[in-house]
Amino acid sequence: MAENTDYRIEHDTMGEVRVPKKALYRAQTQRAVENFPISGNTLEREHIKALAQVKKAAATANEELGVLDAERARAIRDAADAVASGEYDAEFPIDVFQTGSGTSSNMNTNEVLATLASRALESAGAEVHPNDHVNASQSSNDVFPTSVHVAVTNALLNDLKPAMEVLATSLEKKAAEFKHVVKSGRTHLMDATPVTLGQEFSGYAAQVRYGIERIEASLPRVAEVPLGGTAVGTGINTPDGFSARVIELLAQETGLPLTEARNHFEAQANRDGLVEASGQLRNIAYSYMKFMNDIRWMGSGPNTGLGELHIPDLQPGSSIMPGKVNPVICEATIQVAAQVIGNDTTVALSSTNGAFELNVGIPVMAANLLESIRLLANVSRVAAEKMVDGLQANEERCRFLAEASPSIVTPLNKAIGYEAAAKIAKHAVANKVTVREATIELGYVDGEKLTEEQLDKALDVTTMTGNY
Amino acid sequence: MAENTDYRIEHDTMGEVRVPKKALYRAQTQRAVENFPISGNTLEREHIKALAQVKKAAATANEELGVLDAERARAIRDAADAVASGEYDAEFPIDVFQTGSGTSSNMNTNEVLATLASRALESAGAEVHPNDHVNASQSSNDVFPTSVHVAVTNALLNDLKPAMEVLATSLEKKAAEFKHVVKSGRTHLMDATPVTLGQEFSGYAAQVRYGIERIEASLPRVAEVPLGGTAVGTGINTPDGFSARVIELLAQETGLPLTEARNHFEAQANRDGLVEASGQLRNIAYSYMKFMNDIRWMGSGPNTGLGELHIPDLQPGSSIMPGKVNPVICEATIQVAAQVIGNDTTVALSSTNGAFELNVGIPVMAANLLESIRLLANVSRVAAEKMVDGLQANEERCRFLAEASPSIVTPLNKAIGYEAAAKIAKHAVANKVTVREATIELGYVDGEKLTEEQLDKALDVTTMTGNY
Amino acid sequence: MAENTDYRIEHDTMGEVRVPKKALYRAQTQRAVENFPISGNTLEREHIKALAQVKKAAATANEELGVLDAERARAIRDAADAVASGEYDAEFPIDVFQTGSGTSSNMNTNEVLATLASRALESAGAEVHPNDHVNASQSSNDVFPTSVHVAVTNALLNDLKPAMEVLATSLEKKAAEFKHVVKSGRTHLMDATPVTLGQEFSGYAAQVRYGIERIEASLPRVAEVPLGGTAVGTGINTPDGFSARVIELLAQETGLPLTEARNHFEAQANRDGLVEASGQLRNIAYSYMKFMNDIRWMGSGPNTGLGELHIPDLQPGSSIMPGKVNPVICEATIQVAAQVIGNDTTVALSSTNGAFELNVGIPVMAANLLESIRLLANVSRVAAEKMVDGLQANEERCRFLAEASPSIVTPLNKAIGYEAAAKIAKHAVANKVTVREATIELGYVDGEKLTEEQLDKALDVTTMTGNY
Amino acid sequence: MAENTDYRIEHDTMGEVRVPKKALYRAQTQRAVENFPISGNTLEREHIKALAQVKKAAATANEELGVLDAERARAIRDAADAVASGEYDAEFPIDVFQTGSGTSSNMNTNEVLATLASRALESAGAEVHPNDHVNASQSSNDVFPTSVHVAVTNALLNDLKPAMEVLATSLEKKAAEFKHVVKSGRTHLMDATPVTLGQEFSGYAAQVRYGIERIEASLPRVAEVPLGGTAVGTGINTPDGFSARVIELLAQETGLPLTEARNHFEAQANRDGLVEASGQLRNIAYSYMKFMNDIRWMGSGPNTGLGELHIPDLQPGSSIMPGKVNPVICEATIQVAAQVIGNDTTVALSSTNGAFELNVGIPVMAANLLESIRLLANVSRVAAEKMVDGLQANEERCRFLAEASPSIVTPLNKAIGYEAAAKIAKHAVANKVTVREATIELGYVDGEKLTEEQLDKALDVTTMTGNY
Repeated sequence: MAENTDYRIEHDTMGEVRVPKKALYRAQTQRAVENFPISGNTLEREHIKALAQVKKAAATANEELGVLDAERARAIRDAADAVASGEYDAEFPIDVFQTGSGTSSNMNTNEVLATLASRALESAGAEVHPNDHVNASQSSNDVFPTSVHVAVTNALLNDLKPAMEVLATSLEKKAAEFKHVVKSGRTHLMDATPVTLGQEFSGYAAQVRYGIERIEASLPRVAEVPLGGTAVGTGINTPDGFSARVIELLAQETGLPLTEARNHFEAQANRDGLVEASGQLRNIAYSYMKFMNDIRWMGSGPNTGLGELHIPDLQPGSSIMPGKVNPVICEATIQVAAQVIGNDTTVALSSTNGAFELNVGIPVMAANLLESIRLLANVSRVAAEKMVDGLQANEERCRFLAEASPSIVTPLNKAIGYEAAAKIAKHAVANKVTVREATIELGYVDGEKLTEEQLDKALDVTTMTGNY
Repeated sequence: MAENTDYRIEHDTMGEVRVPKKALYRAQTQRAVENFPISGNTLEREHIKALAQVKKAAATANEELGVLDAERARAIRDAADAVASGEYDAEFPIDVFQTGSGTSSNMNTNEVLATLASRALESAGAEVHPNDHVNASQSSNDVFPTSVHVAVTNALLNDLKPAMEVLATSLEKKAAEFKHVVKSGRTHLMDATPVTLGQEFSGYAAQVRYGIERIEASLPRVAEVPLGGTAVGTGINTPDGFSARVIELLAQETGLPLTEARNHFEAQANRDGLVEASGQLRNIAYSYMKFMNDIRWMGSGPNTGLGELHIPDLQPGSSIMPGKVNPVICEATIQVAAQVIGNDTTVALSSTNGAFELNVGIPVMAANLLESIRLLANVSRVAAEKMVDGLQANEERCRFLAEASPSIVTPLNKAIGYEAAAKIAKHAVANKVTVREATIELGYVDGEKLTEEQLDKALDVTTMTGNY
Repeated sequence: MAENTDYRIEHDTMGEVRVPKKALYRAQTQRAVENFPISGNTLEREHIKALAQVKKAAATANEELGVLDAERARAIRDAADAVASGEYDAEFPIDVFQTGSGTSSNMNTNEVLATLASRALESAGAEVHPNDHVNASQSSNDVFPTSVHVAVTNALLNDLKPAMEVLATSLEKKAAEFKHVVKSGRTHLMDATPVTLGQEFSGYAAQVRYGIERIEASLPRVAEVPLGGTAVGTGINTPDGFSARVIELLAQETGLPLTEARNHFEAQANRDGLVEASGQLRNIAYSYMKFMNDIRWMGSGPNTGLGELHIPDLQPGSSIMPGKVNPVICEATIQVAAQVIGNDTTVALSSTNGAFELNVGIPVMAANLLESIRLLANVSRVAAEKMVDGLQANEERCRFLAEASPSIVTPLNKAIGYEAAAKIAKHAVANKVTVREATIELGYVDGEKLTEEQLDKALDVTTMTGNY
Repeated sequence: MAENTDYRIEHDTMGEVRVPKKALYRAQTQRAVENFPISGNTLEREHIKALAQVKKAAATANEELGVLDAERARAIRDAADAVASGEYDAEFPIDVFQTGSGTSSNMNTNEVLATLASRALESAGAEVHPNDHVNASQSSNDVFPTSVHVAVTNALLNDLKPAMEVLATSLEKKAAEFKHVVKSGRTHLMDATPVTLGQEFSGYAAQVRYGIERIEASLPRVAEVPLGGTAVGTGINTPDGFSARVIELLAQETGLPLTEARNHFEAQANRDGLVEASGQLRNIAYSYMKFMNDIRWMGSGPNTGLGELHIPDLQPGSSIMPGKVNPVICEATIQVAAQVIGNDTTVALSSTNGAFELNVGIPVMAANLLESIRLLANVSRVAAEKMVDGLQANEERCRFLAEASPSIVTPLNKAIGYEAAAKIAKHAVANKVTVREATIELGYVDGEKLTEEQLDKALDVTTMTGNY
């Protein structure tokens, strides 16, 4: 019977389970696959890698502290390297929506590593047990959250941060390029005193740089891991010194600034550090929304909008309106922002899923955080390369509007007072004349408080943009 | 000693408490005042009224079912009328952030009514007890949530709905007034085919009308009340028939479409109906955001923005830029929307505060919901009267932009195909000529597929706005 | 050169594009694939199907109204059927994070259908053009949002609703099974008067049934579609009667209660109906959280928790603590709830992405809504079948705790008053005696107000659960 | 006519306004009062104080830089001191829901100070003008957001931080007091290996301490202010050096670590620093929710719950169930948390209210942030003093449950392996015997792998809690 040959029988503490014959995983993984047919999404690649890195560090620490023999430790390390490389991702089939501790995925890792390590030691006749060896001195309750903090820290530092730097640099280049493009400021969407387009882009770049700063400000708590606390934070079933040593090894292995939980009971029960990281991502998302909206408004038109910027043409914009081109990268970015903000709700709300010594919403927190980081990183690069780098200023239009703003009357406050200046501005708008004309028409160029020369100097829009 | 004379001693089941001498409330209210010095905010006016209405209905039902004698029932009813009128609001000093069942406020109501009723019966020598009489056949656990549903239903139907109708009517008047104002459509913020300003305003009005429909769609669950379930939904300590009768009386008293919980255990433990109402308010808030943003963008300028609408001047807009006027009502409305959306988070999240037979986040749900309704109602009227009613179209500017949009080439698709039409649009923008000119320049008016007459007919922007 | 043979050259209004040789899609799809390397996620299956259904209905309406010839119309319909069946999902490679109107996916559909239809007509020598034929009388701006409303309505009615009915039925079966299991009520987590476990489960079932009612209450606005509005709501480039007819055909094709937008400008610019649907899903998610939390608390233990329920053993619960079994389905469900609530934030927030005649956050709204529906539907079935159906009451333990609750003194209020009853309850707790013993010890069984027989009747916990 | 005497006529650039005769404010304040009858809530006390402090610093900087004469500068400073003290709060009647820049409140401050300062200089015959003098070198667009950052920084450092320290200290005292109270750990709500109650409280205290750290981590961006940027960030109408000097003075005046915006265009347009602060408050709120839930669960009972802690009795808990006492401070705290989390939604969402050089959602951001800080500060003190300080451990019950947990089998893993240990745990639960008994019954005490002495040592629950 064909069926028999496709499966093998595995057992765990609950009994027997049929497992696909070629699978490296065993009974507990298979149970979880069957228990959770929910989303079809499995752990993020970075997350599997981090799990393997934790197991590798633990094998070494266990060897050093006499818990594991050298052969098994080496076999586990080698297996962990292979898993970390991505070679065996297909062996991690469990749904994100699983047990809230991630025990299923921890056991999945234990099982795959045990199988690989046992095979390597087959000739030597040694077995590697998922719990007794691979998981030695560990519990899902410290390993799984640790793996999330490791994956998140890595993704923040090595994926998102460099991508944001690419975007910040692109914006800074434009800030330099647009340094002398004078345009109308807008407050409340209404005509205000002039700024340069470069000043605006310097502000956008600063928002991105501050976003990086926000990520870094959260790291002392994001990179702090509960490893060594095992089941409930007490470190039960670990040898003395395990926690400090395994985290030291993990920090070396990953090259990340990981530190041991200052309080293992806080660290065991709460994922507040992840909530904090997520909050900073939310902040970045809202920052992106702001300047992407500015950019698309400045690019609005070509004929009925503001028309101050030309956004690169990437694709036809309408299936019905011929020749239309839209700010599609701005839109994709803003949609990413909306996704990140929603993901943040999920992450933060998952705090309510903690009780006593464990939070049981960790897999969903991990999936949302890692997705958010990935989306923000990808869209930062896309936005820089496909859109920001190609922006062109409509310099003439910008200056025309700057000079058309009635708010350029503002420098006259000092000479003639706010109330007189207001009369000029209103007169200019009502009669469709320039501020200069209105000032003269209303008789304010009296040669005393104000000469014509002073007036022209005061109304120079370039001067009004200051020196910042 | 002066102090002695300012306080009197009251007692409850926990012992003695010093209560301000003139207070109508008693020991339990005083304990709660001392226990919760948190926000300084007390129950909303509408909420106190609803509590009194519940007590009045209960007194009558208790009388009818033989639980209360006629004198006490009448005295309680009279006291409840007085409290409902607002006369004694100062006797309700307990903070919103109190026990999550609202027991403190229920007992506050019981105590104030007991005092007032006892005074009325003083000559007759009868005492009215807060628990044994005023609260007879009731528990905080059914009374307090019922009072919230009553207050919310009332505020939705008698405050928010009429206010939204005022706003919808104002928008509809503008839709009629602007019926023939042709302007450029905008999709992706980019120039699109023409619409009328009236069509846009008809859409805004429809959003408001749909908001009202959303409120009404939630009423079957918002107006359903747990009264009669007492402590845990079983109706312990109520006479037969109490639940149905007291709700009937309450519906009569309030004029609201109140119904008895179809399942008293669902109704006792959950405030999902309030979450639903709050979700609809959130929807309305986002609707308001959308059209208020449209309006302020159309009013942007006067010289560097879109300049399609004139928004009434209400106040000077800048302490430094003379003559500036801003769309302040749009801004206030959008801030209300942000508040309502935040309040909704609080209301919905409070669902997590339920366990077994009770949700213990009811006072904060009530406060946020009632505030949201009040804010939306007030801002709807303010927006209608101070802003929408005074809007003026810059008709000439609107038509100029409509004709400037390269998307008016769209009707040519049918004659010459989408790709040829795209060439025309691009030619027009690149060479700053009209679509008509571009069509001719590129040789598409060939007398076959397209005659000059057909071209002019096709390019008529008014026709393009259709007949809706 | 091998490379040459893997690609073919396609063109659109912007020029030439290299497209994979075997792809059915064309230039615009390819541009979008290259422009949006962001998430790796493409449209949900249900969404592609809905797009094809819209195209099919449009082909028929176009044929009937003289816009398309019969051959092309038939060829488009056949192609649409094939796409709707799922056969060509791999031809829809565009990222969710794309242009906010979904124009890229609409063009993707147009291109795939044009290729399939052209092939079918190859022998007849007829070409089918993506814009001029497949997209005739349509725009992305009405087609794409319509496809979302269709897909969502379908998923709500044909996926989520039946799944919720499965769960409600499972809970109702347990309500019947547990009808006589008396247990302690709990309010504020503290001992309250008795309920039956059946009453509690009837409340859970009611929550699910109300969730279905909430979905249905939103349908009048969710199932309303903007089709026929084309570019900006005016219906430009549609023949008379197109909107009504195409929606009638679409309703027939899908079997869904679809209706035409009552106001095409509201419907074009806003996705408020989707926000409303999402809000109802959020409500359902919070409902699920509540009773899943109750269930896992009742199942807590086996020895240090409440121990009132036995939850089916599905998998070993700990990698370190042997023999431990956890309420993993409750946890998976609560994580789904957290995801749905986060997705709802994304959907609602995307309202801010609307301006004038278009919302440009539609693809992300669609992806989140359809994912939420899918997750809730799947987890409803999993929860019913793997968990609820297998729940067993620890009946003895339940009754023991019911009788241990000091709140069973409550029925004595009527005989001896609330204050005397409070003394009994406190005495019982302080002296670790039963309420019955305390009542006697304190001398309340005086043969007048209270006889021993009355006492025993009053303290019967089964009676206290009432008749609901 | 009485009416005439109650009002005086003021004017501004828009014309005449009737102002209450005794009011210190003038025309623009009065216009705003009439324009915004929305919530009834005015600025928070701390916010008015901060506005006055900004004006004082500006007066000095203006004097030093030659913009104001010494008399006027001094008069403005004196007036600002009086306003900062709280003496004139009633002169700030404008609604929170006002113009989004806070211009109305900035002008309110200018007007009140101008009136007070003019009165002081009356004998000297000098007038102080709201715009030309009090607002000199300033704009609402830099003053108002600066005032929010000042008020928030002050409230964080001088209100919330000390209050959180009070709570952390209370929790730490309990951690010490409960150091030797061994209890069952709980993961997934299921029986786990032992911890001490002291360890749990040390974790709660750590959460609070981390909350303080989170606030401090945000300060570099929260305490950065846009002052000196005036209208649009360019510093128009300021003398050279104004920005640096006025902020230096403001830092001195307030004693806060204020710094000048590193990029004035970022700082002018965005309130991201406020969003960051709000995100940290959200984190604190979720932390509080977690341990308050733990505490009330441990206090659940007295007879049907966990019964591990006794929470102080503060007030009768039920209007119907005599003798019931509830964890009301936990509930109030969790409701505060829900409010803070909702307020955070409002604050973060208000980011979408920014465009170009200004965010126009500042007043609502300020109101929500300052309310959140106030609520968290107050409830931290209340929780510490009324609840945490009075907590008592039910030590006997704790130890009983610790020893009843089948997870105490865990230390046997090392001796006999995970799978054998699982058999013991299951046997113990199924047969209601202790783990010790089960181990012996199943024959694992074989004198080889395991002696009876080793067994007893392994099963010592105190040892299992480790040394942390």
